[in-house]
Amino acid sequence: MSIDTHKRYVVRIRTRDRKGIISMVTQVLYKRDLNIIKNAEYVDPELHHFFMRTEVEGKVDPGLLEGELRQNLPAQAEVACHPTALKGLVILVTKESHCLGDLLIRHAFNDLGATIKAVVGNHQDLETLVKRFDLPFHYVSHEGISREEHEKLMHAAIDLYTPDYVVLAKYMRILTPHFINHYPQRIVNIHHSFLPAFIGANPYMQAHARGVKLVGATAHIVNDALDEGPIITQGVVPVTHEYTAQDMARAGRDIEKVILAKAVRLVVEDRVFLYDNKTIIFE
Amino acid sequence: MSIDTHKRYVVRIRTRDRKGIISMVTQVLYKRDLNIIKNAEYVDPELHHFFMRTEVEGKVDPGLLEGELRQNLPAQAEVACHPTALKGLVILVTKESHCLGDLLIRHAFNDLGATIKAVVGNHQDLETLVKRFDLPFHYVSHEGISREEHEKLMHAAIDLYTPDYVVLAKYMRILTPHFINHYPQRIVNIHHSFLPAFIGANPYMQAHARGVKLVGATAHIVNDALDEGPIITQGVVPVTHEYTAQDMARAGRDIEKVILAKAVRLVVEDRVFLYDNKTIIFE
Amino acid sequence: MSIDTHKRYVVRIRTRDRKGIISMVTQVLYKRDLNIIKNAEYVDPELHHFFMRTEVEGKVDPGLLEGELRQNLPAQAEVACHPTALKGLVILVTKESHCLGDLLIRHAFNDLGATIKAVVGNHQDLETLVKRFDLPFHYVSHEGISREEHEKLMHAAIDLYTPDYVVLAKYMRILTPHFINHYPQRIVNIHHSFLPAFIGANPYMQAHARGVKLVGATAHIVNDALDEGPIITQGVVPVTHEYTAQDMARAGRDIEKVILAKAVRLVVEDRVFLYDNKTIIFE
Amino acid sequence: MSIDTHKRYVVRIRTRDRKGIISMVTQVLYKRDLNIIKNAEYVDPELHHFFMRTEVEGKVDPGLLEGELRQNLPAQAEVACHPTALKGLVILVTKESHCLGDLLIRHAFNDLGATIKAVVGNHQDLETLVKRFDLPFHYVSHEGISREEHEKLMHAAIDLYTPDYVVLAKYMRILTPHFINHYPQRIVNIHHSFLPAFIGANPYMQAHARGVKLVGATAHIVNDALDEGPIITQGVVPVTHEYTAQDMARAGRDIEKVILAKAVRLVVEDRVFLYDNKTIIFE
Repeated sequence: MSIDTHKRYVVRIRTRDRKGIISMVTQVLYKRDLNIIKNAEYVDPELHHFFMRTEVEGKVDPGLLEGELRQNLPAQAEVACHPTALKGLVILVTKESHCLGDLLIRHAFNDLGATIKAVVGNHQDLETLVKRFDLPFHYVSHEGISREEHEKLMHAAIDLYTPDYVVLAKYMRILTPHFINHYPQRIVNIHHSFLPAFIGANPYMQAHARGVKLVGATAHIVNDALDEGPIITQGVVPVTHEYTAQDMARAGRDIEKVILAKAVRLVVEDRVFLYDNKTIIFE
Repeated sequence: MSIDTHKRYVVRIRTRDRKGIISMVTQVLYKRDLNIIKNAEYVDPELHHFFMRTEVEGKVDPGLLEGELRQNLPAQAEVACHPTALKGLVILVTKESHCLGDLLIRHAFNDLGATIKAVVGNHQDLETLVKRFDLPFHYVSHEGISREEHEKLMHAAIDLYTPDYVVLAKYMRILTPHFINHYPQRIVNIHHSFLPAFIGANPYMQAHARGVKLVGATAHIVNDALDEGPIITQGVVPVTHEYTAQDMARAGRDIEKVILAKAVRLVVEDRVFLYDNKTIIFE
Repeated sequence: MSIDTHKRYVVRIRTRDRKGIISMVTQVLYKRDLNIIKNAEYVDPELHHFFMRTEVEGKVDPGLLEGELRQNLPAQAEVACHPTALKGLVILVTKESHCLGDLLIRHAFNDLGATIKAVVGNHQDLETLVKRFDLPFHYVSHEGISREEHEKLMHAAIDLYTPDYVVLAKYMRILTPHFINHYPQRIVNIHHSFLPAFIGANPYMQAHARGVKLVGATAHIVNDALDEGPIITQGVVPVTHEYTAQDMARAGRDIEKVILAKAVRLVVEDRVFLYDNKTIIFE
Repeated sequence: MSIDTHKRYVVRIRTRDRKGIISMVTQVLYKRDLNIIKNAEYVDPELHHFFMRTEVEGKVDPGLLEGELRQNLPAQAEVACHPTALKGLVILVTKESHCLGDLLIRHAFNDLGATIKAVVGNHQDLETLVKRFDLPFHYVSHEGISREEHEKLMHAAIDLYTPDYVVLAKYMRILTPHFINHYPQRIVNIHHSFLPAFIGANPYMQAHARGVKLVGATAHIVNDALDEGPIITQGVVPVTHEYTAQDMARAGRDIEKVILAKAVRLVVEDRVFLYDNKTIIFE
């Protein structure tokens, strides 16, 4: 690869910890005449893993920089250097409009931090909305076919666009591990509860039955344990005994869409590390 | 007026307080075979004013009911009974998309609680967005004309639709008392600060300069004191020293749109009383 | 009972719903020349139960008023009228000081809304603190005796004070149904998680292991299902990946104490109805 | 100064920015065999000032380390290295107990992160509370003497204890610049509003009159502009039209005490930089 003429890069490192890593990394960056715009590190105090995210400005060949850093780090260290660039998303939906609508509005006014390439739905309800924004909508019904067949069709629709991330914006189908592993650590979901409370179906019904006084939303990375993937961000809104399950759902929608959009921004800006089924987030 | 066949009504009463009002009102409703769905009262402990909002179900001639209630209340009591029905809105905008976009998405999926009749902008930036939703957009530029002439044109555009409420969804022009008094107590504004902090222009610049750790949004009724009208609802989001004024604005947008939508719902559902430059809100 | 000379009363009613109850109740209060200070009702829309809490001012024999209301209500209606008065509390603790300390400070400055009669601990750690406030502390160790024997001793210590409510201010022993049923619906607990997440032991350890981004606290009435009793109020605080389980616990303490104090105030002011393992709260 | 045997140090640097500072600092720390526990930097994007706080573990002579760092930094750079140690506080109060009570309870159970050396009050109301915790209370009445005389007596009482910080825990006297400059950047105040709203006296009265829907609290460093000093942290709680000014004050107390305790912890842990009348906070 020839010298990249990009001006801004994100450097991400994860490795087991030892003394002197920050010193080494910053020295390498300094020698290459890269200016540190923003820098953050974290060391897990129990497992002694080291994480670092650095935004730099300058000119560099990312591959060469990665190589130099790697040779100064413990074996198995993971090093990545990428020019900052808009990531591509494919959004999966079912019938609910609020999360998709919010992403579309942000996208239409360059406020999402990513490019929506297409929307894929297992129902047709949101096709009109997507078309209003001149984006492709793929209707992939699950009716009359097996889960495996349906996921195969979903894959085909999604992979037309080679997205960096797949965003589940209230996509109400359970995904198989096979599907999930096709986009490892690259699926972001919004779950309409304050996880780990109310895992599974109908969380607002569960929340209403339990009589909670706050309802929440959780954005997380999807792994094959579904609602048990690493949590990116969470929010809550207060409710009272006067709220029906439907009222709770309505209150929840306002926080769901904000939380999902925040999570999307965090992942597409390379601010999230996954680790031990948790996230480390450099905001 | 003949017997109305509507099934649900909102009865609103404001009067100076005296003993027995709730008893009288509920007895009248009971005798007319109206079932109380939801009931709320408030008595100002200092000024001894009484406020009541009651949702009832049944069949009634609203005018007759109002008359009967009024004759049992102190002189000057205000009584209103309306069948519940979607109110009509005209939305005023300038260039920012997030509040308008949020209202449009809610409206498109019957989640706003009101009907958007048209959008009027003093810039053309949001015309495309409005057209995507098949709603009328009126571009009324303020360039090259006086404030009075501009407001006259705005009036003309708005009044085509005889709206129940005018919603300022980041409309960035100062309104004259003349304009405001044309829609008395019927203009809802979102101010991008936690009022009364940062009254006036560029609140996020002010907030950044002051080094606050929370930024806020305030939805209020517009009176001729502009940012000093009665507050309907407020929200905040945390910020840090790392936020530029632009970052604060971005963080603030997420709360602005939610707060404005909440305020719109409260007013169109007749839940807001204005009183002593404050609001009484029966949620 | 002779005419009570108290000036303020709380009237509480629960019954299956039928038309006209509010009208009847307010008419009875009006005829008895009682002035309604504050009034709230709720009807469960599915189960058609009716709840009402009314604060009145005037002079009345509570027993007679209860009787008159009851005979105008459906059979099995529950009616209670009590003069407002400070309730008495016994507080149970183990080793953690923050909730107890907060209650003691409020109590010392008449800001609790209740009277602390005594503190009972299964460890001696907090004895000094309680003594500083000139209140009785009973040390009832659980060491070397059976759970039944321990609870018997706890009962004995508590019942010396005939409390209206027993408050578990981080009392870290599991209670038997036998113990709980001795104070039916009169035990308030603070659980250090956002229930129903992290039921059981060490919720902050669980929360840390799960990688949540908010930690919470839940005040609830204790029934024989322990952490599953009716929720009174809940709160959350944000945390990050940098928080150890101990940091989460520290962050949580600030919300635990505030939430517990709020719950105590709600119950001692007779604002809480228990219903269907949930609470109805008239704030 | 001989080699210090402390094990943990905080290194703080502020300087105008230039390339390579982080690299230089971390290299120096590495060469001295100091292990970085936690590290944070911030560069003001407009004014190009650089701030860094690093916690290290090891053995070092702080003076020598400061010297070595300083000679590698731009002229006028500020460098400080201190072993971590509990700071000493003197608390100033008037009549309100909630903030003082909260600090005393935390202090009594080693949960404050600082040592309370004494409490000084211009009223006697809180003397008993302080004495309960076996701490010195100085009653310095302002009655019958001039402001200057009173402040002189306050100084005398405070300076007996050579505190690192003076904490105004609802001290309701206006301080002169002369008094403030005696403890430059070392006075922490809790203001009972969401600054800059409701500067000055009786903020809850002001908030009630304005009809806000949230009330707040602000902890800040006191400079000679009083309520206009750099903000450390802020919080809010929701209120409704039913809240009297007294109810707002009560709601506010729960957030005031938590916010003040948080601010105290941030300053005594050397996490706060003051800059351009704002704070930079490395949490």
